[in-house]
Amino acid sequence: MATPERFRRLWETLLPVGRDPAGGWVRYSWSEADLACRRWFAEQAAARDLVLETDRNGNLFAWWGDPRAPDAVVTGSHLDSVPHGGAYDGPLGVVSALLAVDVLRERGVRPRRPVAVAVFTEEEGSRFGVACLGSRLLTGAIDPDHVRTLRDLDGVSLAGAMAAAGVAPEGIGPDPERLARIGAFVELHIEQGRRLVELDAPVGVASAIWPHGRWRMDITGEGNHAGTTRMSDRRDPMLTAAYAVLAANKEARLRGCHATVGRIEVTPNATNAVPASVVAWLDARAPDRAALEALVEAVRVRVRERAGRDGTTVTMTAESVTPPVEFDAGLRDRLSGLLGAPVLPTAAGHDAGVLAAHVPAAMLFVRNPTGVSHAPGEAATDEDCAAGVAALADVLAELAG
Amino acid sequence: MATPERFRRLWETLLPVGRDPAGGWVRYSWSEADLACRRWFAEQAAARDLVLETDRNGNLFAWWGDPRAPDAVVTGSHLDSVPHGGAYDGPLGVVSALLAVDVLRERGVRPRRPVAVAVFTEEEGSRFGVACLGSRLLTGAIDPDHVRTLRDLDGVSLAGAMAAAGVAPEGIGPDPERLARIGAFVELHIEQGRRLVELDAPVGVASAIWPHGRWRMDITGEGNHAGTTRMSDRRDPMLTAAYAVLAANKEARLRGCHATVGRIEVTPNATNAVPASVVAWLDARAPDRAALEALVEAVRVRVRERAGRDGTTVTMTAESVTPPVEFDAGLRDRLSGLLGAPVLPTAAGHDAGVLAAHVPAAMLFVRNPTGVSHAPGEAATDEDCAAGVAALADVLAELAG
Repeated sequence: MATPERFRRLWETLLPVGRDPAGGWVRYSWSEADLACRRWFAEQAAARDLVLETDRNGNLFAWWGDPRAPDAVVTGSHLDSVPHGGAYDGPLGVVSALLAVDVLRERGVRPRRPVAVAVFTEEEGSRFGVACLGSRLLTGAIDPDHVRTLRDLDGVSLAGAMAAAGVAPEGIGPDPERLARIGAFVELHIEQGRRLVELDAPVGVASAIWPHGRWRMDITGEGNHAGTTRMSDRRDPMLTAAYAVLAANKEARLRGCHATVGRIEVTPNATNAVPASVVAWLDARAPDRAALEALVEAVRVRVRERAGRDGTTVTMTAESVTPPVEFDAGLRDRLSGLLGAPVLPTAAGHDAGVLAAHVPAAMLFVRNPTGVSHAPGEAATDEDCAAGVAALADVLAELAG
Repeated sequence: MATPERFRRLWETLLPVGRDPAGGWVRYSWSEADLACRRWFAEQAAARDLVLETDRNGNLFAWWGDPRAPDAVVTGSHLDSVPHGGAYDGPLGVVSALLAVDVLRERGVRPRRPVAVAVFTEEEGSRFGVACLGSRLLTGAIDPDHVRTLRDLDGVSLAGAMAAAGVAPEGIGPDPERLARIGAFVELHIEQGRRLVELDAPVGVASAIWPHGRWRMDITGEGNHAGTTRMSDRRDPMLTAAYAVLAANKEARLRGCHATVGRIEVTPNATNAVPASVVAWLDARAPDRAALEALVEAVRVRVRERAGRDGTTVTMTAESVTPPVEFDAGLRDRLSGLLGAPVLPTAAGHDAGVLAAHVPAAMLFVRNPTGVSHAPGEAATDEDCAAGVAALADVLAELAG
């Protein structure tokens, strides 16, 4: 049975890995912490007599049933983290999947379809900058030649990091044969907001992922002395960047969208210097494509206008734009009906969203009382996590059983 | 005679030192580039039969006349730079001083008082964070025990850097005997603004240095997921920081002061994360102490009010506050009369400002057509530099001759 105590017991075997004294968890793909997570997963698979596979992209699959049989029901998530992130984002889906297998076996379920627990590589994009990297490679959504050359902040290439971990980087790329054997994918994930708190439900089913993207704003002014340059002689790009931060926030609030400037790089970033240039990144998300485009355009127009007044120049470049994902409607309604769980959208990307373009995919969300995400304050009660395990077990039994 | 060609000849012997391929000059104290500047200065002193001394704080003095005699007339500036700074800030005063000695000798001047050309250490504070470090140590304005422990961005202590350069760090600290022998100090410096352009004058005399300071604003919010956190659930410190940037600018413009936020540190500084905290530094300068206090207080009130609306907290701490400097009025009027040069204030700190608390001190400014400072665009024509040399020679002849 899926009890809170049982959840806690397995949960605590993974919890110390990558915990950072400065706060939260730091588990970047192919780092020491990530390799420890992978060893932990291998041990858990072995303890359950699941057949462990590492695919050509470093994604892990632990099989209950024949890995070569068609129409597999795959569940799982990721074990990597954002910098100083919370404990649940990713690992909850993996731990819950392992426990769901335990629950089904106790119930005596003998699945007709093979079941696999999956761990996707670099979902957060924290090390090499591309989110959902493992599932994008698997599905052919990204060029492997480009991926091999991606470098982390220390200059280490993805190819180098994989090779150091004993996985051949030459092999990365689309894996259509493996993809074709996946009949359905279900990812359980901590909710990244407080909608389930408001709905008073421990578990929900995803309807869609909002379209979202990242835009880089390069703002150039004139570096100068902060003490001696008269205010009227300045061309200060920090003013334009500050305005962009406030304008993005305001436009998002007015439009029912999300916009954030969470990253800024200032040159030279000296207390006594009017900066020469500032780069600011806009993260924008909206319920639909038209709303996203209108939001970004509104920010662009306002920031350009302000740059004109500041004597600066600004260029705004899309670094990545992800179209909306509508999860398989049949699967969504089936799970929602089965669980009696509410349906809700999310504004975050997930491996399930990448896979949804190729196989029927669904997501379950577990209630997060703080609503915090990508930070240590992220939380779920053991009771809700156990409810998540029970729900996932029911889903797997329904799909594979 | 002080000709443009002659200026250019000596200028170009120093120009290549510390030039950075990425732009501008990088000459941090006790770095390879700084040691090369010091060797250059020793060669120039030797070529002129000036007696070179390194004082206990690493400041250099090249003596024309008896180094032990009282009432010396000292001129000079510094050779260190801000990161990717211009060529003139500092070096112009040293090169002009050496050329002024040449000019006086050609004129057959036999000074009654000893004359020294000085190079002060770490005027910019670019490596160890304290501006005018060499003159502050000399005058006892800063605790040497504290200074020895200052570290650069690589973790190298000032004591370690000095020792590596062969100067004993144990000896740093006040040097009252040396200070007492200085009868007057005159620093020639590139203007850090365009006042002399407007006045149509190649050379000016400083009246005062505006009081100025640095305040650190620690803004704390709640780190969260940029995609999924509803706008209404956010406590985003970037909003408060952005508002601080704009409020400081507006208050300074309204009050005829200078205010700049040129440095920002964001945690975690990730595109897809609402930041947990932002630190922003305010550089503020004003014509007088009351105006400076009123400016900083106005910014503090506005930022606190905004933090209340953003759900963030802000603490604002003075990191350094430098009182106004009024240069010796008698000396100022004497030089202004002698040169027929206009008198103007500055908002930048200088070694002459530190020394002014102990000895009659004055500054000459040389016209800067771009008005740019602390950036490679800083400029002066060879003709104006030659006019600066001639003016400095006249000043030294008047004071020492």
